Amino acid sequence: MAKLVECIPNFSEGRNQEIIDGLVATAKSVPGVTLLDYSSDQSHNRSVFTLVGDEESIQEGAFQLVKYASEKIDMTKHTGEHPRMGATDVLPFVPVKDISMEECVQLAKKVAERINKELAIPVFLYEEAASRPERQNLAKVRKGQFEGMPEKLLEEDWAPDFGERKIHPTAGVTAVGARMPLVAFNVNLDTDNLEIANKIAKIIRGSGGGYKYCKAIGVMLEGRNIAQVSMNMVNLEKCSLYRTFETIRFEAKRYGVSIIGSEIVGLAPAKALVDVAEYYLQLEEFDYSKQVLENHLLG
Amino acid sequence: MAKLVECIPNFSEGRNQEIIDGLVATAKSVPGVTLLDYSSDQSHNRSVFTLVGDEESIQEGAFQLVKYASEKIDMTKHTGEHPRMGATDVLPFVPVKDISMEECVQLAKKVAERINKELAIPVFLYEEAASRPERQNLAKVRKGQFEGMPEKLLEEDWAPDFGERKIHPTAGVTAVGARMPLVAFNVNLDTDNLEIANKIAKIIRGSGGGYKYCKAIGVMLEGRNIAQVSMNMVNLEKCSLYRTFETIRFEAKRYGVSIIGSEIVGLAPAKALVDVAEYYLQLEEFDYSKQVLENHLLG
Repeated sequence: MAKLVECIPNFSEGRNQEIIDGLVATAKSVPGVTLLDYSSDQSHNRSVFTLVGDEESIQEGAFQLVKYASEKIDMTKHTGEHPRMGATDVLPFVPVKDISMEECVQLAKKVAERINKELAIPVFLYEEAASRPERQNLAKVRKGQFEGMPEKLLEEDWAPDFGERKIHPTAGVTAVGARMPLVAFNVNLDTDNLEIANKIAKIIRGSGGGYKYCKAIGVMLEGRNIAQVSMNMVNLEKCSLYRTFETIRFEAKRYGVSIIGSEIVGLAPAKALVDVAEYYLQLEEFDYSKQVLENHLLG
Repeated sequence: MAKLVECIPNFSEGRNQEIIDGLVATAKSVPGVTLLDYSSDQSHNRSVFTLVGDEESIQEGAFQLVKYASEKIDMTKHTGEHPRMGATDVLPFVPVKDISMEECVQLAKKVAERINKELAIPVFLYEEAASRPERQNLAKVRKGQFEGMPEKLLEEDWAPDFGERKIHPTAGVTAVGARMPLVAFNVNLDTDNLEIANKIAKIIRGSGGGYKYCKAIGVMLEGRNIAQVSMNMVNLEKCSLYRTFETIRFEAKRYGVSIIGSEIVGLAPAKALVDVAEYYLQLEEFDYSKQVLENHLLG
């Protein structure tokens, strides 16, 4: 079985179609890499790509994209709402199939080293690949953004993991990391009271004392006039979708509110949903890797 | 995306390890075909293989196996509990990915024609590939078994779909067909009363007025001393696992009995389980083919 790795580079360009097309062409030009999805946001001036490939190909694909972005995107001219510090702003690798997190960390470090060596872009390692705890959190690493980076790199604690204490003049700084697959999971309530969704979000999320691997906020769906608990599930092995769903159900009951539906935004690994089926059907001794037909079909 | 087809040939040999090994070697020798699983039963004297491959390769793989079986298995010497009429007894094709049932029917007919032309084995088409309604049911086609076939083929209604009214002297007759994927799904009850499982099975199965695409019987799990509703779900598009599960739950309530667990025997397509998750999470507008990561990974 081939080891499969996902890579989700974020580029600081969401407006210039020529450059976006160039990134797409670059992604498609690397053998063994499949471009699953990409989307650009005008107001953020940012594009998010989702690639998948075997262990070797994904490294080559990621590097070629970072190279292309460094040649075409000039951060000294970049404006946009989303925080950013580099032409390729972040480059996370995610284990998909038959590969461990530790292997993804090693692979992230190899790509990070090559980016610095061949393109002279300083690199921070983040999340699971971080070299120290305070660098796990991307927001902390990126604080100061592109404009503040020349100064930040000179601070005692902020020498890059690869490269010197000096930004690339136009491509800035890149964060390279490894993380678990993430699922965006939203649960809709039969209330127009945002306060209730906010209270439930606070209870359910790790930062509020809830599930460690769940991030949550309350949001209002204006078009439907209903409140929603909007979640990022960041470790589906440690916290499955059914668990937050059932918790939201019993917490909402206190307000006389029920769940009227849910949604998954973007991609989800099949296992995240099969885990849910296993729970509700009370399946005994189900072996995901052996009993799901498709697991025998992936190269 | 490559079209993927499953093929589940049943061979009338479950005792001679040399012949079984030869079948395995033959299955593995055809490029583009993957042998997912095989099992042999001594008392049935029968082996069931599960292969998968693209549209062209699976035809070649199926044919080569039928050819090997016709050379090695002598039906005049075959004994075993399971009904059978040929060296390759049945050869069903199942659509797995990006292929319609109609395409599987066409493919089954092509393989059937080749089997007759090159190996001189008469072939009946069955299930979705059947040439007339009374040939859909395999049990009816196979009635009379190997020993009764010479006579049966001479009956007015039983001319083979391919070939003359004369069995292959040692390989007999083969049934080639197309059908939907099938899932073996068993639900365990917290009772030692087999009668209750039998009553629920009767209510739930198509032949008893229940769900058309569900076959069910009550069985006793001797080791655990509990009764089980044992089902074959033969069309998961038309009847999902959660539907029979919830029906068993409310029917069992009448006897004060609850569900204590369930099991899936063998392989299940991921979609069968994702459908279950969609139901229980009340997912709105979930697009299986686009939103499940793995669906982008299959060649």
